[in-house]
Amino acid sequence: MRYSKNIWHPCSQMKDYETFKPLHIVRASGCYLELANGKKIIDATSSWWCKSLGHQHPRLKAALLQQADRFEHVIFANTTNDKIIALSNKLTSLMPSLKKVFYAGDGSCAVEIAMKMSLHARKILQEPQRKKFITLSNAYHGETVGAMSVSDLGLYSEPYTAMLFDTVVISSIPYVSHQNAALWSNCDAYWEQIEKQLLPWAETATAILVEPILQGAGGMKIYSQDFLKRLRAWASLHHVHLIADEIMTGIGRTGKMLACEHAGIEPDFLCLGKGLTSGWMSFSAVLTMETIYDLFYDDYETGKSFLHSHTFSGHALGAAIAFEVLAIMEEEKLCERAVLLGAHMYESMLAVANETGQLTNVRGIGAMVAADLVSADPSRRLGYEVFQKAVDLGALLRPLGNTIYWLLPLNAEMGVVDELRGITIGAIASLVPSLRRRGARSEQE
Amino acid sequence: MRYSKNIWHPCSQMKDYETFKPLHIVRASGCYLELANGKKIIDATSSWWCKSLGHQHPRLKAALLQQADRFEHVIFANTTNDKIIALSNKLTSLMPSLKKVFYAGDGSCAVEIAMKMSLHARKILQEPQRKKFITLSNAYHGETVGAMSVSDLGLYSEPYTAMLFDTVVISSIPYVSHQNAALWSNCDAYWEQIEKQLLPWAETATAILVEPILQGAGGMKIYSQDFLKRLRAWASLHHVHLIADEIMTGIGRTGKMLACEHAGIEPDFLCLGKGLTSGWMSFSAVLTMETIYDLFYDDYETGKSFLHSHTFSGHALGAAIAFEVLAIMEEEKLCERAVLLGAHMYESMLAVANETGQLTNVRGIGAMVAADLVSADPSRRLGYEVFQKAVDLGALLRPLGNTIYWLLPLNAEMGVVDELRGITIGAIASLVPSLRRRGARSEQE
Repeated sequence: MRYSKNIWHPCSQMKDYETFKPLHIVRASGCYLELANGKKIIDATSSWWCKSLGHQHPRLKAALLQQADRFEHVIFANTTNDKIIALSNKLTSLMPSLKKVFYAGDGSCAVEIAMKMSLHARKILQEPQRKKFITLSNAYHGETVGAMSVSDLGLYSEPYTAMLFDTVVISSIPYVSHQNAALWSNCDAYWEQIEKQLLPWAETATAILVEPILQGAGGMKIYSQDFLKRLRAWASLHHVHLIADEIMTGIGRTGKMLACEHAGIEPDFLCLGKGLTSGWMSFSAVLTMETIYDLFYDDYETGKSFLHSHTFSGHALGAAIAFEVLAIMEEEKLCERAVLLGAHMYESMLAVANETGQLTNVRGIGAMVAADLVSADPSRRLGYEVFQKAVDLGALLRPLGNTIYWLLPLNAEMGVVDELRGITIGAIASLVPSLRRRGARSEQE
Repeated sequence: MRYSKNIWHPCSQMKDYETFKPLHIVRASGCYLELANGKKIIDATSSWWCKSLGHQHPRLKAALLQQADRFEHVIFANTTNDKIIALSNKLTSLMPSLKKVFYAGDGSCAVEIAMKMSLHARKILQEPQRKKFITLSNAYHGETVGAMSVSDLGLYSEPYTAMLFDTVVISSIPYVSHQNAALWSNCDAYWEQIEKQLLPWAETATAILVEPILQGAGGMKIYSQDFLKRLRAWASLHHVHLIADEIMTGIGRTGKMLACEHAGIEPDFLCLGKGLTSGWMSFSAVLTMETIYDLFYDDYETGKSFLHSHTFSGHALGAAIAFEVLAIMEEEKLCERAVLLGAHMYESMLAVANETGQLTNVRGIGAMVAADLVSADPSRRLGYEVFQKAVDLGALLRPLGNTIYWLLPLNAEMGVVDELRGITIGAIASLVPSLRRRGARSEQE
């Protein structure tokens, strides 16, 4: 009855909605979504990884209202305002060499702006041969044409091949489950193989794109910080830019303000989105170095201007919220909090794995844990079955294929993790007849 | 002092800001921006064409607050809510055959989603040869890689060539100044030449993209409705999709709710943004036909799902505002109002042309009028000089090169037009020594 037949939902096979109707949301608060039927369920993946301070944060609402009383948005070419200045000061204090901010709307747009700046810089530098982008296997940088071209989506991007440009994809990434893995600190065993893949492009690459430390849509994969460090060094040596897409990892998700900090490196371009406004609205930023900015800085007649004109660049409501997000992160020490929460999440996911025997490769960093279903029956959509059962049991837990993951707000109460553990055990147990009774028991814990 | 050195503004040569500091906005209301120095100036282009109901509309603010009290945003895969259902019902009532809505963040993303749907449909239809996009000369569809590939930006896109795909650009567009031009109703004289350009692609094109009736960034150019009608007929005959990018033209700008209505046609895909929320935030929509949607509707295992996953798809705050925008448009009959306002704008721009003798090709439709500076000195940036002078005189009038245009909120008072006329005369007169006294006189009118 509630289900509108005229909506085409994102990332969905709409036929699935015949048998599993969309959840009718009426309210949301903290980690919880309230449904029209009165039920409250956990938003276990922070609404596609963006609601890093949870829903309805009172300070963020207050920041929105305060700005809404002054102005909501004014063209950001040739204008400025206190809020965007304050936000820019905060953002450019995140990393010593990232001193300039360009604002955009969504994450993929931020990635494309960084890519365009890199390529445009080559023209100004008279290095026209440098036009290749390098990306990592399992990379995801968004789904507009440019962002998709540098993503490693396999079959999913196949229908769009006619629009995509060729990208170099580096494989043999040194993945780890945890920061205590030996590979985390030393990926020597992998590096030779990786460098071999990079070297042919040393003179023709303009930039390497990475999701630092944690790859999201590609399956919540964590890789060695030493790898990122070496990648940065290699890029610097060969004058290749490093673009860090921290749209998912940034603003505390991995237990550091920026995931790049794990490797102690700074990229040439840094992209922020999602958690930047704690998912209040589409608002993104590209940070870059003064040396890049300076290339474009010249008399108008020289034709070096970067003319990208995003209607909502510098959006005042978004800026007001982002400023408050950064203030809260700082005041409430939420990076440290993410580490504590994450430790409990990791232990709890291990408990789910032990209890069900259906999970492998439990991995975690900051406030993210993931594990893969040991599929006995590849003809079944096990992740989707877990998703449906979890909703029944009280959590919106939307797996990536057969990868189950939790990505709670950084300020979630520890008790939410315990609740989620029970629900996840119950949902997984329902797949396996012999586990059903144990699963039911766990729910009551 | 106020100017932040760490911001890289959009669509700007930052060196220009040395001599012309960004305007420091503190408030905005209706058609006016209030600066830190206490001055109020007219937002003559509705902040890049998005603030179609002006700044700080009380009903839109109320809609924002009401939704902000419930929830700001929840992942839109597998969820729904009353507001998005209500908005979708309104949007799918705009045109009889556009019965499905997919939501996105910004305008270029909406354009790229329509393009991806078109190309993906070809794969499902087993028409792999249909992969070419056709666009019009002077087209502008956005600046992400896909949107830029189908835009006709000339030199501006040159630095990004390595990322762009080839598009067919149709020239000899039958431009008009006004709906009373003969060409408006009959473009027979142009059609043969146009059809000749289209025909080679009849079997290999997937879609034609148009900004219906009014091309924006390409220079505020108006074209024959008969041309759009014929283009639609040609596309249907050859099974080519028509993508209407109404991001700027939609929601009343041209005096019709949708610019396509001027030609009495319906596209296969319709993209809305900007005015959809009256520029309150980045929020866009792609409407399409049931027949397109049905192609993707099948069992999950068939692999036909459209998996584009925009984090902020179906954004609840944006939906609440967009719903209210559509309600206001209807209740206050703002399309009719745009026609009345536009008539006064057109007469007033003609007066500017007469008074200054510096404008040619005065043109207008709905609440948009434009004219080109008769440049006597191509080495000067005349449009930029007019812009600077206009700010002094009281209007943020940001020309496109040497094209001066007004694009006021649809609900602007007639008096604002009169004020703008005086300012524009004064700004243009300042370029030409002999006109300065007359210009000064006009300002006092």
